[in-house]
Amino acid sequence: MLSPDTILSRIGSPADLKALNDRELDQLADEMRHELIGVVGRRAAHFASNLGVVELCLALHLTFDFATDRLIWDTGHQIYPHKLITGRAAELHTIRTKGGLMGYPNPAESPYDLFMTGHAGCAPSTALGLKLGDELMGRTDAHSVAVIGDGAFPSGIVFEALNHASGSQSKLLVILNDNKMSICPPVGGVANALDRARMSKTYHDWNKRLKSLVPTIPLVGETAERWLQQFKDAIKASLQHGMLFEELGFTYLGPIDGHDLKGLRTYLEKVKEMSGPILLHVLTNKGHGFEPAVKDPVKFHAPAPFRKSEGGYVPIKVSSSETYTDAFSAALFDACRRDSRVAVLTAAMCEGNKLQKVRETFPKQFFDVGICESHAVALAGGMAKAGARPVVDIYSTFLQRAYDQIFQEVSLQSLPVVFCLDRAGLVGADGPTHHGSYDLAYMRAFPNMVVMAPGDRRDVGPMLEFALGHDAPVSIRYPRANLESVEREVQPIELGQAEVIEWESDGMIVACGAILGTCLQAAARLHRRYGLHVGVINARFAKPLDRTTIGKAIEEAAFVLTVEEGCLPGGFGSAVLEAANDAGLPTQHVRRLGLPDRFVLHAERDEQLAEVGLDVDGITASALELARAVGLEFTDLGPEPEAAAAARPDSAVGPAAHPNGSTVVAASPSQQ
Amino acid sequence: MLSPDTILSRIGSPADLKALNDRELDQLADEMRHELIGVVGRRAAHFASNLGVVELCLALHLTFDFATDRLIWDTGHQIYPHKLITGRAAELHTIRTKGGLMGYPNPAESPYDLFMTGHAGCAPSTALGLKLGDELMGRTDAHSVAVIGDGAFPSGIVFEALNHASGSQSKLLVILNDNKMSICPPVGGVANALDRARMSKTYHDWNKRLKSLVPTIPLVGETAERWLQQFKDAIKASLQHGMLFEELGFTYLGPIDGHDLKGLRTYLEKVKEMSGPILLHVLTNKGHGFEPAVKDPVKFHAPAPFRKSEGGYVPIKVSSSETYTDAFSAALFDACRRDSRVAVLTAAMCEGNKLQKVRETFPKQFFDVGICESHAVALAGGMAKAGARPVVDIYSTFLQRAYDQIFQEVSLQSLPVVFCLDRAGLVGADGPTHHGSYDLAYMRAFPNMVVMAPGDRRDVGPMLEFALGHDAPVSIRYPRANLESVEREVQPIELGQAEVIEWESDGMIVACGAILGTCLQAAARLHRRYGLHVGVINARFAKPLDRTTIGKAIEEAAFVLTVEEGCLPGGFGSAVLEAANDAGLPTQHVRRLGLPDRFVLHAERDEQLAEVGLDVDGITASALELARAVGLEFTDLGPEPEAAAAARPDSAVGPAAHPNGSTVVAASPSQQ
Repeated sequence: MLSPDTILSRIGSPADLKALNDRELDQLADEMRHELIGVVGRRAAHFASNLGVVELCLALHLTFDFATDRLIWDTGHQIYPHKLITGRAAELHTIRTKGGLMGYPNPAESPYDLFMTGHAGCAPSTALGLKLGDELMGRTDAHSVAVIGDGAFPSGIVFEALNHASGSQSKLLVILNDNKMSICPPVGGVANALDRARMSKTYHDWNKRLKSLVPTIPLVGETAERWLQQFKDAIKASLQHGMLFEELGFTYLGPIDGHDLKGLRTYLEKVKEMSGPILLHVLTNKGHGFEPAVKDPVKFHAPAPFRKSEGGYVPIKVSSSETYTDAFSAALFDACRRDSRVAVLTAAMCEGNKLQKVRETFPKQFFDVGICESHAVALAGGMAKAGARPVVDIYSTFLQRAYDQIFQEVSLQSLPVVFCLDRAGLVGADGPTHHGSYDLAYMRAFPNMVVMAPGDRRDVGPMLEFALGHDAPVSIRYPRANLESVEREVQPIELGQAEVIEWESDGMIVACGAILGTCLQAAARLHRRYGLHVGVINARFAKPLDRTTIGKAIEEAAFVLTVEEGCLPGGFGSAVLEAANDAGLPTQHVRRLGLPDRFVLHAERDEQLAEVGLDVDGITASALELARAVGLEFTDLGPEPEAAAAARPDSAVGPAAHPNGSTVVAASPSQQ
Repeated sequence: MLSPDTILSRIGSPADLKALNDRELDQLADEMRHELIGVVGRRAAHFASNLGVVELCLALHLTFDFATDRLIWDTGHQIYPHKLITGRAAELHTIRTKGGLMGYPNPAESPYDLFMTGHAGCAPSTALGLKLGDELMGRTDAHSVAVIGDGAFPSGIVFEALNHASGSQSKLLVILNDNKMSICPPVGGVANALDRARMSKTYHDWNKRLKSLVPTIPLVGETAERWLQQFKDAIKASLQHGMLFEELGFTYLGPIDGHDLKGLRTYLEKVKEMSGPILLHVLTNKGHGFEPAVKDPVKFHAPAPFRKSEGGYVPIKVSSSETYTDAFSAALFDACRRDSRVAVLTAAMCEGNKLQKVRETFPKQFFDVGICESHAVALAGGMAKAGARPVVDIYSTFLQRAYDQIFQEVSLQSLPVVFCLDRAGLVGADGPTHHGSYDLAYMRAFPNMVVMAPGDRRDVGPMLEFALGHDAPVSIRYPRANLESVEREVQPIELGQAEVIEWESDGMIVACGAILGTCLQAAARLHRRYGLHVGVINARFAKPLDRTTIGKAIEEAAFVLTVEEGCLPGGFGSAVLEAANDAGLPTQHVRRLGLPDRFVLHAERDEQLAEVGLDVDGITASALELARAVGLEFTDLGPEPEAAAAARPDSAVGPAAHPNGSTVVAASPSQQ
C-alpha cells in the first residue's frame, strides 16, 4: 500500500519530522492525504475529519515532543494522521478490521495514544489530569494539549474542565478544531459565539487596528462621531472576540488558518512559551484536499467505500437493507404525525439516528440539543411534566452520559419519557467505546422504568406505540443491525408479557431483543441436526419480566438458555435468575449467554457476535453443552442444508424454516 | 408551632400574598425567618440557604402565578420558604421526618413542587423542558423560571442548558442565586467571572454612565486622553459585565440585591415583559437575618439542632461517634502523607467528606473541582495515566453523574483510580435523591473494576491501602453510619477474598459491606433465641466475587442469605446467584436481602433500614422464614437479653457477643 519512495514511508516516529524542510513537509501532507483517501476509499471509516487535521497534526508533532508531552485527540475519530506519523503508516490499511488498527486512539498500539476514546468532550479533562499528574510526579515542564472539535465543545464536561483549568493555574493548551460543523448542524449559544469569532478578523489584527486608531482622535463634529463609532466597534470586537473563553479565564488566540502549516507552527511555538490555560482557535475544513468531501462533509463523515469514476467518486456498494434505525425513524415519524404531543430529542445524532425526515417535516416536534445527553434527558423530563410525550433517541453508549438524569429527572419522578437506545449491543468496527453493553443492566435497576427490546421489525411499531401510551418511563433498545422479521401470529404488546414463539420440552431459549432471529435459527439447527426440540420465547420485556411465562419454561423445559446482547453481570439473564430465585425455582439447568466481562475489540459485527458466542454456531454449541449437562441424549445427524445459507456473508439471517413449521426468519426489507 | 395571629398562618396559597401591602410583606418575611429558625433549630436540616431566599421566594410568587407558570428550585434544599407559602406552613415542623414534609421539593406534597430534586444543576434544563413542553401543548404564555445557586453553576449540564436555551428562542428566566459561596470555597473561571460581575456596578448604572459620557467628548489634548480612558473603561465594563452569559446568548441583568423585596419585584416585573432567555443575577446572603449563620454559613448549611443560650446559639447535642466518613478521611490523610503520588479529588464536598485536614495539610495533593463529577473522574483518569494515584471521594448518589467517565476514562483504560463512595446505601432524612442505591450494580458491570465494601472500621485502612496498591480501578463503598468494629482475628485484604467470620451449617449470612455488624447481631439472635447455628461471611469484594468461599457456603449450609445496602436488581445478591449458576449450584435455599425496587422516602436511617428489612429484626425474620422454607426445625426460646440493647436509640449496634465466642460487635469509637 504505502509506496517506499514516499517521505511518509520514512517517518518511523515524530522525531523523523524534524529533519524535513518546508517543501518536504508540504509533500508529506499531500502523501498523508493520499494515503487517507486510498485507505478510506476501501472501507467505511471516518474520513472528512481526518483530512481536516493533517496540518494541525504535523504542526503539533513538530512543535511538541509527545514522547513526554501529552496529546489527547477528543472523540478520537480524527486520529488517522496521528497514526500515520507515529509509526503506523504501513498498517493503516488494516484500520477498523479485526486484528488491525483501531479507528480510535488505542494505547495498545502506540505510546503516542494515551486514552482509548470515542465519546466526545473529555479531552480537556484528561489533558488537564495528565498535566496535574505530571506535576505531582515532578515533571513540571511537560506540555499538555487537548484537540477538540466545535461539535463537542458544548458538552457540559468541556465547560467543567475549562472552569477548573482556569482556577488551577496549570498550563493547559486547548485547541478548538473548528470545522464549522458537527455531524448535524450546530446548535446553541456556543455555536453562535464561534460564528462571531470567525467573522471578525484575528485578535492581533484587531489590536493593531485599535492601536492605529488611537492617535487619530479627531477633534471636530461629524468626523469625531464617525471616529467614535469606529472606535467603539473596534473595542467591542477586540473584547468580545473569544470573550466566552476569556471570561472563563483562558487566554484566547485566533482564529487562525488550520491548513497553513507554517502559520500553525508559529502560533504553537508562541503558545509553548506562554503560561496558564490557553485556547487556540483553529479553523479547518472537513475533507480538506478532497473536493467531494469538502462539498458534502456530512456524507463524507464516515462514508461507505468509494472509487474514482468518470463522474467523480462513487460508492462501491450501497447497502439496501433496512436497519432497526430505519424502522424506529419511520415509527417516530408516524408517532409525530399521529400525536402533536410527541417530541423527538437527539444529541447531535439526527444523521446516525436518521431523523432528518422528522426534523424537516415536524420541526416543532424535533429538538437537537447538540452533544449534551445530560441536558437532553433532563429537558425531556421537563417536557413530559408539561404533558408532552418526549422520545429521547440516543445511542446506548452515549446515553450513559445521562445516567444520573435518567435516575433523578425521569425515573424518580416516574415521568413518561421514552428512551430509544440505538446501537445497543455490539456495534462492529467502532469497537469498545461504542458498544451498547450496559443499558439493560442499568435501566432495570431504576424503579418505575419499563425496559423493552423488540424481537424483530414487527415489534418495532407496536412497541413504540405501547411506550408512548404508557404513563411512566420506558426504554427500548435495538441493535446496529439489519431488520429481520419472524413469521408468526404477532401477539400484541402487553406490559410485562413475553411472546412464546414456540414451546418445546427439551429446551427453551429466552431471547431478549433482536437476537431472536439468531435464536430461532439455532433452535432450527438443534432440531434438524441434533433432533432436539427447542422452543423460543421473545422476551420483549426485561422489566417487568414475564415471570409467569419464563418461570413455566424453567419448570417445564429440560434446559433454558437466556440470550442477550448485553453485559452478563446484572443483565437480562440475571433478571431471569433473580425471578427464578424469588419463585424458589431451581436454575442449574439455566444458562446465560451475553456479553462477557471484558471489552470486545473492533471487528465486523458478525465477527464480534461469533467471538462472544452470540451467533447461530455459538448459541447452538451452548445449547448442546447444556443439553449434555442436563442429561439429554442426542446424536449429530450432520450439517443441515440451511447452515451454509446462514453463514453466507451479507446476509445476517438466511431463511430458516422452524422445524415446527410455524415460524420463519427472513431478512426481507419489504416485509411487514 | 405556627402562631394563629401571624400573617403567615393566613397564607393558604401564593394567591393570598397579593392582598398584602409592603409593610405586611416585610412582616411576613420576618415571620418566615422566625419559623425557619424555630423549626431548623429543633432538627438537623438545611438552613442558611433557606434564610437567604426568603425575599426572592416572595418576589417570585408575587410576580408570577406558579399555578400555571413554572418554577424549579435547583438542588432543592432551599425550598423551605416556598413550602411555607404554598400551604405547608403548619407542617414545616415535620420536615425531614418519616411521614412529614420532605426536605426537598416533592410533587406528592404540592402541585407547586414540580420535580423531586437533590442533585445540583438540572434546573435550567427541566425549566426549559417545561417551557418547550408547554409550548408544544399550546400554552405559549406560561413563564418558566429556574433558580440556581452559584455553587451549582459550573456543573456541565447548566452550560448545556444555557447553550440550548440560547438557540431555542424560547423564553426562559434563569435566576442566579449568588450567595458568594457553595458549601466549599468556589473554584474556577465561573466563580472568578461572578466575582468581577459583583465588583462592578449594576448594568444599568454603567449604561447610564456611558450615555452621560458621550456628549462630553472633549476636543483638546490631555483632557481628551483622560476622557478616552474613562470611555474605554466604561465600554469595557458595560461589555464585560455578565459577558459570559451574554456570549451564550442570554440577556444578563444584575447583580441586584436579593434581600430588597421591592427591588426584586421591580426587576422581575420588567423581566416578565422581556423576550428570549434571560439571566438575572441576584445577590443573597446565606443565613440572612440570623447572625450566627451569616457569620459561619458553612457550619449553618445543615447544622445540628441548636438552642439560644446566653452566649448566643449553641448546639443541643454534639454527636461524638465517629463515622465511616471520618475513618476514610483519616485513611486518606495517611495515604497522602505516606505517598506523594496520592491525590484526593472531591466535587465540592470537602465538608461532607471531611477533607478539610487533607486540603490544609496536603494542598498539592488535594483537588476540589466544584460540583463537576464528570470532570472529576476524567481528570482522575488523566492523573492516573501520568502515574499519580488519584482517589475520587464522592457520595455514591452524586458519582452517578460520572457514570460514562467511569466507563470510558477509567474502566476501559483500566487505570488505577480509586473511588471512595461515601453515603452508599440509605442516607436518612435527605431521602430518595440522596440514597446510594445503584453503585454495586453499575460498578460491577464494568470490566477491570474491583468493587469492595468494608465490613467494619478495621477493614477501612487496609482496604484503601490495597486499592492504592492495585494497578486497576477500584471502588470502595461505605454507608452514612457510625463506625462499628467486629472483634476478630482480622484477615488481610486479598483480591477477591471474602473473610469468614464464623462458619456454621444451619445457615450462612453473606454480608456485603458495613451491614456486617447487623448481620452478626442477627446471627447471634438466631442462635440464642431460636437455637439456629448461623455463620457470617464478610464478603469484602462484590467483584471479583469470592466464588470459592461463597460457593462452599451454598454447598454446605442449609440456607444462605445475602445482605446488602444496595438495589436488588443486579446487585451483590445477583452476583452471588450468577456465580452459583456458573458453578452449577442450586440456589433455592439462597435468598437476597437489599433495597427494594422502589424509592425509599425520607426518615431516620434506622427507620429506613427497618422499613426495608435490613435491621436486626428484618434480617432475623428473613432468616427464620428461609430456615422454615428449607425445613430446618427450631423453636422460639423467647427474647434474648441483648435484644433490648440492640433496639436502644442512638446506638446502632449494641454489644452482642457471638454465640461462638469469637466475635463481638462494638460501637466503640476508640477501638482499632
